[in-house]
Amino acid sequence: MAEQEGITVKKSENFSDWYTQVVEKAELSDIRYNVKGFVVFRPWSVISMELMYDLLEAELQAKGHKPVWFPAVIPESNFRKEAAHVEGFMPNVFWITEAGSEGKKLEERLALRPTSETAMYKLYALWVRSWRDLPLKLYQRCQVWRYEGKGTRPFIRSREFYWIESHNVFANREGAEAQVREDMEITENVMHKKYAVSFLFFQRPEHDKFPGAVHTYASDALMPDGRVIQLPSTHLLGQNFSKPFEIKYTDKDGNERYVWQTCYGPAVSRIFAAVISLHGDDKGLVMPPAIAPLQVIIVPVFDELNKEKIVKEAEALKEQLKRKFRVDIDARDEYTPGWKYNYWELKGVPLRVEIGPEDVEKNQIVLVRRDTGEKEIVKQNKAAVAVKAALRKIHRNLVKKAEKSLKKNIRKASSMAKLKKILREQGGLVKIYWCGSTECADYIKAETDGGVIRGTLFGEKKVSKKGRCVYCKKETEQVVYVAKQY
Amino acid sequence: MAEQEGITVKKSENFSDWYTQVVEKAELSDIRYNVKGFVVFRPWSVISMELMYDLLEAELQAKGHKPVWFPAVIPESNFRKEAAHVEGFMPNVFWITEAGSEGKKLEERLALRPTSETAMYKLYALWVRSWRDLPLKLYQRCQVWRYEGKGTRPFIRSREFYWIESHNVFANREGAEAQVREDMEITENVMHKKYAVSFLFFQRPEHDKFPGAVHTYASDALMPDGRVIQLPSTHLLGQNFSKPFEIKYTDKDGNERYVWQTCYGPAVSRIFAAVISLHGDDKGLVMPPAIAPLQVIIVPVFDELNKEKIVKEAEALKEQLKRKFRVDIDARDEYTPGWKYNYWELKGVPLRVEIGPEDVEKNQIVLVRRDTGEKEIVKQNKAAVAVKAALRKIHRNLVKKAEKSLKKNIRKASSMAKLKKILREQGGLVKIYWCGSTECADYIKAETDGGVIRGTLFGEKKVSKKGRCVYCKKETEQVVYVAKQY
Repeated sequence: MAEQEGITVKKSENFSDWYTQVVEKAELSDIRYNVKGFVVFRPWSVISMELMYDLLEAELQAKGHKPVWFPAVIPESNFRKEAAHVEGFMPNVFWITEAGSEGKKLEERLALRPTSETAMYKLYALWVRSWRDLPLKLYQRCQVWRYEGKGTRPFIRSREFYWIESHNVFANREGAEAQVREDMEITENVMHKKYAVSFLFFQRPEHDKFPGAVHTYASDALMPDGRVIQLPSTHLLGQNFSKPFEIKYTDKDGNERYVWQTCYGPAVSRIFAAVISLHGDDKGLVMPPAIAPLQVIIVPVFDELNKEKIVKEAEALKEQLKRKFRVDIDARDEYTPGWKYNYWELKGVPLRVEIGPEDVEKNQIVLVRRDTGEKEIVKQNKAAVAVKAALRKIHRNLVKKAEKSLKKNIRKASSMAKLKKILREQGGLVKIYWCGSTECADYIKAETDGGVIRGTLFGEKKVSKKGRCVYCKKETEQVVYVAKQY
Repeated sequence: MAEQEGITVKKSENFSDWYTQVVEKAELSDIRYNVKGFVVFRPWSVISMELMYDLLEAELQAKGHKPVWFPAVIPESNFRKEAAHVEGFMPNVFWITEAGSEGKKLEERLALRPTSETAMYKLYALWVRSWRDLPLKLYQRCQVWRYEGKGTRPFIRSREFYWIESHNVFANREGAEAQVREDMEITENVMHKKYAVSFLFFQRPEHDKFPGAVHTYASDALMPDGRVIQLPSTHLLGQNFSKPFEIKYTDKDGNERYVWQTCYGPAVSRIFAAVISLHGDDKGLVMPPAIAPLQVIIVPVFDELNKEKIVKEAEALKEQLKRKFRVDIDARDEYTPGWKYNYWELKGVPLRVEIGPEDVEKNQIVLVRRDTGEKEIVKQNKAAVAVKAALRKIHRNLVKKAEKSLKKNIRKASSMAKLKKILREQGGLVKIYWCGSTECADYIKAETDGGVIRGTLFGEKKVSKKGRCVYCKKETEQVVYVAKQY
């Protein structure tokens, strides 16, 4: 800890190395756990992800969703009830087959949950009886486990990740469709407005739906290397699960009907990857104030003679601020102020407060913004107000920057040549006409070296003008977006 | 939901049935999940346990412990590193042996963590380098899984439970011993002072230690049927794990030394069993205000004519209270006020506020305490102050009642006959002399039909007078407590 090495690579030059260094040097995660694809999350990321959970759960609860805890294991027989679901998830399941010292075989294999539809809906069939029980809006915060073939990277993809899954039941299709829109609103209110992560919601094409869904709507954010990362998705399940699981209700006229369902899965640990990537810079992390483990770090600048006096002032300042902000003080003797500035910049604390002998004399403090480096001198008795204003400015700046960077990376292509060129040279999202066939999607992916059709933009007006599929040149009205993905 | 059936058995007459009914009728847990020993936790218990976690984590963090998230799976090779530990936990392990559609065998079996020493200490060996890295105080909130042979009951014992495990590392034995005392202090500050659960801390006898520990200190609370339930325990691990896991540090003089360790495991879902059991009464749950999902339920009393006016007043009251309390309003048309009173009493909401036409006229409300049934009429503009005071009284009353009931169930016995009689007729904790031999402990257990030696009471002064082991009559100074246990 005595030596200090910051990030040694520029984010714009080598994003991948930059990401690896930030994850390690800001002590977010440790990849040395000795099971492939499983990582350890360290305090600095866990505190932040707990704040992310808090905001997300507050929003869910405000909209009438209630928390439950379901078992982490799912009997194979439950798991096999919905055909598309089992086909989609089977390759990803870890199986518990035995227990105890002698390795006694279990009567039935248990899936370590990769997602909880087939755990929860078994009970939903018992809980839902009449129209009075609807809607049923429940969620759980938990981990899920997926035996992934793809390479793993902390936060972005690993065999264990942290999410919320919200599972909702309605009397009819309209109720379920309204829930899908509410899920998008939740995503907007939290991921965009609090985490400062910009995204677009796409309706995924048929071949890329959640296994078992009627429709899948997924948000994509754009990483600095021009590839998109899929973030929360919400699924209209229709009656695909209510039929095999026999989730039925009696309506007001006494008729028995199958329910309509949705599910929504914001993966907090994956969103954190976007937070790191979108906001960080060449000095390290830049944490949005709403989810920063510390919002303010006070660094007293002292020598041996004036230490006591200055630290005392710093402590008084902390007392003043701590009711409203997450604040700490770094009064360690063994490091210089400069060392500390670098350290807390690497950690991404949004606001630094410097207080030295001159400041004490003038009853002032110096605020330094992490995002812009701007300095501001304020009177000590105005500290709380000034800190609040500065944090708000930082938040707004991060939101704006993320929005801008997403916007400017949306382009159009009417030919394969153009599409290839954009994806190769600039990345981002490219708007194209697509005929809707999986064949063309496959060719596009192959020829662009990984460009995937993300789907139609939710809420985007249908174009009046027809165009031609960028690959087969068939006439079509369908406009979709293509991007390389994580 | 239209019909209403309260608890149909008296707590004092049949505690076991009472417990089962409360768990089901207050919608705390559902035991119909189709894997043996795994239960579903429903919103009313989850919201409360989340509050329990919040209080416990705030206390841990205030004392310098930081959160981490470790993987839920532990490679068998890690698991086998500490001999006593593996012997103790091996019978309880669920094993993941295969993955994917074809059931591909994993290279190494993975234990679904029954506890995380052997997951975490592998990384601790990498994180601890010098005396500067100590103490290292980390905890995680998580589930653990244990393949239990014993019968399972929701919250009390199941194959999956929710806890915090705190794992701490020190340079020397003194540091570790101080941590053990701090863990007891945390238990006191949270479990006693917030959850209103009374307990005693015992140093467990050698034959009943945590597998791998030097000493185990465990808290016992007393259930209404006279049996004790083990709640948080803290373990001095000494260097039993640091040696096989090679957790070493360089001291100030440059010598390499093995660290000293402790771990502490408050099981939130199990403490919740004590909360239900200690405070509940013949009408159902009684929730301590600090962890009640709702602290106040407002029941407007109206007829068709005055409904609008009275509900409006009730809403205004909710607005007034909601900044400081967890409050809701039950304005459902389909139920009578009497039905609602019973419903919210069953759910254990600490305080009911009634507001009817006469109250509106007089600008007053009626507060009704769940614990005593006492009514109090207060002016509407004094509502917040009165609610605060009432909740405080309820809290104090619950704490006192629990303390008293523990205290009066501690008795002494100097003969096997007396010990047997007390345990048979009254239960509770019985103070005896014990020679320290496992043989006598086994005989005592057999002859008292399950009386287990809980150990020496932590902090209790040694008696000056020697006595004779209640079983073998050998002379001894050791005073221990015996109780039947869950």
